[in-house]
Amino acid sequence: MKTGFIGLGHMGSPMAANLLRAGHEVTVFNRSPEKCRALLELGAHEAVTVADACRGDVVITMLADDLAAARVALADDGIVGQLAVGAIHISMSTIGVALSKRLARTHAAAGQGFVAAPVFGRPEMAVAARLFIVAAGDPAVLEACQPLFAAMGQKTMPVGEDPSAANLVKLSGNFLLAAAIEALGEAVALVDKAGIDRQAYVDLLASTIFPAPAYRTYGDLIAEGKFEPAAFAAPLGYKDIRLMLAAAESLQVPMPLGGLLHHRFLRLLANGGDHLDWAAIGGLAAQDAGTARSAR
Amino acid sequence: MKTGFIGLGHMGSPMAANLLRAGHEVTVFNRSPEKCRALLELGAHEAVTVADACRGDVVITMLADDLAAARVALADDGIVGQLAVGAIHISMSTIGVALSKRLARTHAAAGQGFVAAPVFGRPEMAVAARLFIVAAGDPAVLEACQPLFAAMGQKTMPVGEDPSAANLVKLSGNFLLAAAIEALGEAVALVDKAGIDRQAYVDLLASTIFPAPAYRTYGDLIAEGKFEPAAFAAPLGYKDIRLMLAAAESLQVPMPLGGLLHHRFLRLLANGGDHLDWAAIGGLAAQDAGTARSAR
Amino acid sequence: MKTGFIGLGHMGSPMAANLLRAGHEVTVFNRSPEKCRALLELGAHEAVTVADACRGDVVITMLADDLAAARVALADDGIVGQLAVGAIHISMSTIGVALSKRLARTHAAAGQGFVAAPVFGRPEMAVAARLFIVAAGDPAVLEACQPLFAAMGQKTMPVGEDPSAANLVKLSGNFLLAAAIEALGEAVALVDKAGIDRQAYVDLLASTIFPAPAYRTYGDLIAEGKFEPAAFAAPLGYKDIRLMLAAAESLQVPMPLGGLLHHRFLRLLANGGDHLDWAAIGGLAAQDAGTARSAR
Amino acid sequence: MKTGFIGLGHMGSPMAANLLRAGHEVTVFNRSPEKCRALLELGAHEAVTVADACRGDVVITMLADDLAAARVALADDGIVGQLAVGAIHISMSTIGVALSKRLARTHAAAGQGFVAAPVFGRPEMAVAARLFIVAAGDPAVLEACQPLFAAMGQKTMPVGEDPSAANLVKLSGNFLLAAAIEALGEAVALVDKAGIDRQAYVDLLASTIFPAPAYRTYGDLIAEGKFEPAAFAAPLGYKDIRLMLAAAESLQVPMPLGGLLHHRFLRLLANGGDHLDWAAIGGLAAQDAGTARSAR
Repeated sequence: MKTGFIGLGHMGSPMAANLLRAGHEVTVFNRSPEKCRALLELGAHEAVTVADACRGDVVITMLADDLAAARVALADDGIVGQLAVGAIHISMSTIGVALSKRLARTHAAAGQGFVAAPVFGRPEMAVAARLFIVAAGDPAVLEACQPLFAAMGQKTMPVGEDPSAANLVKLSGNFLLAAAIEALGEAVALVDKAGIDRQAYVDLLASTIFPAPAYRTYGDLIAEGKFEPAAFAAPLGYKDIRLMLAAAESLQVPMPLGGLLHHRFLRLLANGGDHLDWAAIGGLAAQDAGTARSAR
Repeated sequence: MKTGFIGLGHMGSPMAANLLRAGHEVTVFNRSPEKCRALLELGAHEAVTVADACRGDVVITMLADDLAAARVALADDGIVGQLAVGAIHISMSTIGVALSKRLARTHAAAGQGFVAAPVFGRPEMAVAARLFIVAAGDPAVLEACQPLFAAMGQKTMPVGEDPSAANLVKLSGNFLLAAAIEALGEAVALVDKAGIDRQAYVDLLASTIFPAPAYRTYGDLIAEGKFEPAAFAAPLGYKDIRLMLAAAESLQVPMPLGGLLHHRFLRLLANGGDHLDWAAIGGLAAQDAGTARSAR
Repeated sequence: MKTGFIGLGHMGSPMAANLLRAGHEVTVFNRSPEKCRALLELGAHEAVTVADACRGDVVITMLADDLAAARVALADDGIVGQLAVGAIHISMSTIGVALSKRLARTHAAAGQGFVAAPVFGRPEMAVAARLFIVAAGDPAVLEACQPLFAAMGQKTMPVGEDPSAANLVKLSGNFLLAAAIEALGEAVALVDKAGIDRQAYVDLLASTIFPAPAYRTYGDLIAEGKFEPAAFAAPLGYKDIRLMLAAAESLQVPMPLGGLLHHRFLRLLANGGDHLDWAAIGGLAAQDAGTARSAR
Repeated sequence: MKTGFIGLGHMGSPMAANLLRAGHEVTVFNRSPEKCRALLELGAHEAVTVADACRGDVVITMLADDLAAARVALADDGIVGQLAVGAIHISMSTIGVALSKRLARTHAAAGQGFVAAPVFGRPEMAVAARLFIVAAGDPAVLEACQPLFAAMGQKTMPVGEDPSAANLVKLSGNFLLAAAIEALGEAVALVDKAGIDRQAYVDLLASTIFPAPAYRTYGDLIAEGKFEPAAFAAPLGYKDIRLMLAAAESLQVPMPLGGLLHHRFLRLLANGGDHLDWAAIGGLAAQDAGTARSAR
């Protein structure tokens, strides 16, 4: 398929590369154009403007936050203004429910298709085309997109016709991950102060009751107290918790654990943690216990 | 090995049965003696008193709470008074750190061995001899117990020489499970109120970012809103959170998520939830959101 | 002074009346004009449009929320467009910090004065001209407003030159009041379940360690379990907690107690509490304890 | 009345002095006997043992915690064993509900009267005989004690016949005070980061919506960031929150704000705050906001 791809960060670059490898014709755009280079060598076309990336059947966006996603889609020279009638915008960014609803309305009014398809998976899973893609939108449009999804992920999971449902599922998934980080942070602080080896404890958990990659990955980071370099930076994790709580507020769903995570991120950022991995909220319990240490 | 086994509940009965199947000579005791019957048919001896169960090399206890464990071990006619010098008490109950330390001291003073070896796994895993056994105590004594552990579990994980370390690890594991339940409860309440199918949501989570049995098991219960019959009753889950918080208090480790779980259990019990599975704390978020429903 | 007054609710009406009684020339405007009548009898002029209320030296706004305040000030036919250069807008509504900053910028650009002067005090204190007025803005402008403040309140407390400081102080004051309500709710639920008379308990507190009207007022409501009719409705209290948390988020100040109050309000509203007094969050602890009852 | 007085700390000493000034015959006992000296000069008799203090009609205890109170009352040579049949033990210490119930049972079995009469008021109020005394017990016994109460306090407030009710009221009062401290801590951290003068803010609160000594006293301490020397030390505040939560647990009353305070105290103590005033939990919000500073 003739596809535009906007946003070539840690996630977008390998995703676009996998589209190229699967034989799709891909035109790439990034605000900092030097990120396009490696993809050009793989056969991508270069877009100089957002409009250049909107000349195909589909345009995919993979951007950092609501602000970037709104600007690229809704600015005067943005996607909505440039995309052909009948063409499709696949929004794979982790954006909020309110923006997703707004994009759906706007594209519908312009006679364009709109699908939200955020992903679960850290950059190495994007490289391996092993992402989980949570997709929502018009079933016919979703089906049209499936060859692209198949090139980027291991599985596509539809969650309904309202695109924003996919965004909410993604945000709630990040909430569940952050909750696991907080729980691990408290548990590791506890056993550590009792003299139990932190790494052995995480090994035990990951090989018994929690055989899930998240517990292994975040448990290791917390046991080591090593939160940089960031694979997923704390400000992004904070943004997702905020977007989820905004949705919860709008739906009137009290989420006390969500609130606790919000405080944790805010405290981390207020004390200089912008550059840390979001797993660093799992180090605050040790600070509170008076046992925090630097990475060994 | 010649082994006594005290406490034949949902967990103890299949564990004792597996010892018998592995060829050990087992004398069983239960406060309500009718629970011994099935085991007698498998070849167990019946103990009429705790003392009868203490005549071998080892006595195992698998009791409901600290009160029962303390009484069986420390009463005038309890284990400490009856066990031979050099014999071993394996405490497999989920008890608190303080009691475990006290038992260790008392047995040491009496010249007896003491090992704490609580387990992870619901009753069906006990039946299948697939428990995870977290063990702590004198290494030589642990080694002597290994044939018994091998008959009951799939894996034994040593966590040090201080028996109470095993109890703390077990309690913290139940805290992590309860934290996952709470997080799932909030997330399911959120997506449900947004009109997303609860069961499909749990299926998605369990097959993507959380491929751990706990997320599957508890996610299903929460999606169904079906919290009885209880596989692990709420008062027992509450007890474990309390024991963990008691240890945290004693070690001066603030655990805000632990505190949140404590409130949730207390609220559940104050409103008649004694007979429910501990996963029922995962139904409170839906109550708060005004969307709670009975099991479908 | 020649003054316009916009917003004639429970608070605005008696405040405007007190201006008239003090001899000021007041032109009143309300979206539902029937609320003007009583004031016309006191000598007020009637404004048919917002513009009519903007023809004097000063225009005062006392509106329910940010939406109303923003519309009245910033719409095409709003205050900013109608007020003379050099005239003053006194915003006495409880609005957010962000909107207050925006109004300050906009009025400054239009060459108009802007002062934020929110008040503490329930309607009966407005009637008695006993309000506490928290004021911020250019000192010279504040001084010019002082005769008006003196007619409405018992005391004016300046908190700086940035108008939004007054709004933050007001919002934080409502947070402190809500925190006292929550604390009272938990304490009353506790002593009540122990068999202690709730009203006697509140009497004791209010006459010993908490001789502040808030503890008396809210303690009585909680002891009685009587949350309607609302003197200050729950949605308004919720709005203020949200506005305060928005400011806290923007300043990166984690407020866990603020978060707890947020959940309480959201739960109240999700379960049909829109029509209740905001003190009704103080009834949730009794619900959690299984002892909630209707008003006696 | 012929009265023994056990426990001559910051509170007990001035209370005993006021009994002497009112003409009562007082025999004083303290574990560190040098604290008796000033009272001997006022006319007190010196008790060398607890038994010596138990020879009158009444013995008053004012001790630091449950451990001390239990030992003095229940040890072999303690009050219960020494007091005459028909004599009265007035327990004025801030102790837990469980111990109070136990003392009531034990004294009743020994034919002695028992009254719980904890007090509200910091040391300077004890000196001025301005304490508030919360009393519970048999009405006839309470009446017999009234002359003593009148000598020590400005007001006696009976709360029922079960002595432990007075202890619960006292504990819940300290919870309310700690809640006010936490709320002030968060509010001051917020306005401070917005550039508002902390002391002016506290002045404003204390002279408007919170004209209660607690808001003035604790607000000042938080505004100054000055938490030593301790008038009421953090470990004592923590103890009271724990005792209250123990009562709440036993009554099944979830208290989320109580839980938040528990974490705050635990964090303070885990980070070296033992010597600080309990108001120091009000400094944690500023730490979380990254703006904590030393006392100016």
